[in-house]
Amino acid sequence: MRTRKKKWTARELAQNPRVIRDMAEYARKLRGFFNDGLPIHLELGCGKGQFIARMATRHPEAHFVAVERDPTILAAAARLSASLNAPVLFFMLDAKTLAEVFVPGDIARLYVNFCDPWQGKKKWAKRRLTHRNFLEIYDRLEIPEIFFKTDNRELFAFSLESFSENGWKLRNISLDLHRAAREGADAGDANAVARDADDDAVAVTTEYEEKFSALGQPIYRLETYKTHIKPIDK
Amino acid sequence: MRTRKKKWTARELAQNPRVIRDMAEYARKLRGFFNDGLPIHLELGCGKGQFIARMATRHPEAHFVAVERDPTILAAAARLSASLNAPVLFFMLDAKTLAEVFVPGDIARLYVNFCDPWQGKKKWAKRRLTHRNFLEIYDRLEIPEIFFKTDNRELFAFSLESFSENGWKLRNISLDLHRAAREGADAGDANAVARDADDDAVAVTTEYEEKFSALGQPIYRLETYKTHIKPIDK
Repeated sequence: MRTRKKKWTARELAQNPRVIRDMAEYARKLRGFFNDGLPIHLELGCGKGQFIARMATRHPEAHFVAVERDPTILAAAARLSASLNAPVLFFMLDAKTLAEVFVPGDIARLYVNFCDPWQGKKKWAKRRLTHRNFLEIYDRLEIPEIFFKTDNRELFAFSLESFSENGWKLRNISLDLHRAAREGADAGDANAVARDADDDAVAVTTEYEEKFSALGQPIYRLETYKTHIKPIDK
Repeated sequence: MRTRKKKWTARELAQNPRVIRDMAEYARKLRGFFNDGLPIHLELGCGKGQFIARMATRHPEAHFVAVERDPTILAAAARLSASLNAPVLFFMLDAKTLAEVFVPGDIARLYVNFCDPWQGKKKWAKRRLTHRNFLEIYDRLEIPEIFFKTDNRELFAFSLESFSENGWKLRNISLDLHRAAREGADAGDANAVARDADDDAVAVTTEYEEKFSALGQPIYRLETYKTHIKPIDK
């Protein structure tokens, strides 16, 4: 995601207590913020941060961590969580280094929302967050489940194959996530609207997702899991 | 698929040498027609028979078998293959009884094209040809790969999950099979057109597929395979 530089980025990163700046601080935060037996749900590439802020607000039964490598975007996301009083910790990290910071068992669920599809050149495929190279990192961290959303048809097809070929199983696939919600709302179906409001998959959206879904473009979603990794009690 | 009854159905079924009527005949045909080391590719639910007739014409390196339970449809498909001189054998069978006729190792590839999505009632899901109950039949027959096409979004999502959960891996997924072909043709891209003509997945269509794709509806396609079953040399 590209965004214009903000002059308050450095100040936000320095002063916002939600932002993790070094490893010693990470260890402290881990003990204080995390070490209460609740599972950690991590969003890889949090963008402007609406999704993770809303998830954290809705779900006091889990801890929410956002990873983003762009300082400008990370600062904006941290600022949004602060303004909403959402308990999210932010790590300025490249996804490639995830296993240098977290240890196996830390992360109970990974969210990947609308990541860069890296189209155009074939060799770019290995930069996709659903490429085998990244799945190996998730394996090393023993992440038991991944929730993935995209509006990119080819990235979704690629990801289905990549998960499948690397031993991840698939469930709760949607090939047009918001269609039922749109049709329910159009038909004035109060039950459908209430049910969707309860369903994170439909109700908790990213900024990007809202924009593209409003244009009628299908949003693709899947959940994938490893059966040999015992899920952490939630 | 529903179709009007034809008065020539019974005669076609009785006289068309492509149609298998009893088990003794099946055994004879198996020896004569099949027993030359070439793999058998079977279409489950062949409809009006365009797909299997074209496949048989394009691929002398395999044997093509079509299964259909409706006599009227089967007769029409057998008649089409006869008129095109396409070497296809037709079995009037319910998919549920597939393992009573074929034995493990007989079928090297299964095609399922635009099968009934059985929507409307939840309990109907078990009638879908990609339901676990049918996958167990394909397992029993040691079918190493299945090629599946549908225009039904929910059936496709259901099928991805069903294959994945039952140990089948996924490859060559397309979420809009004919889009590239349409766009290539629109742009006058002769290379793309030539490449598509070579590609069975795009070039060999069913009657139903042509009709719905022409309306701009996406056609979904996947290939799925079992790694522990040794594929038959082709």
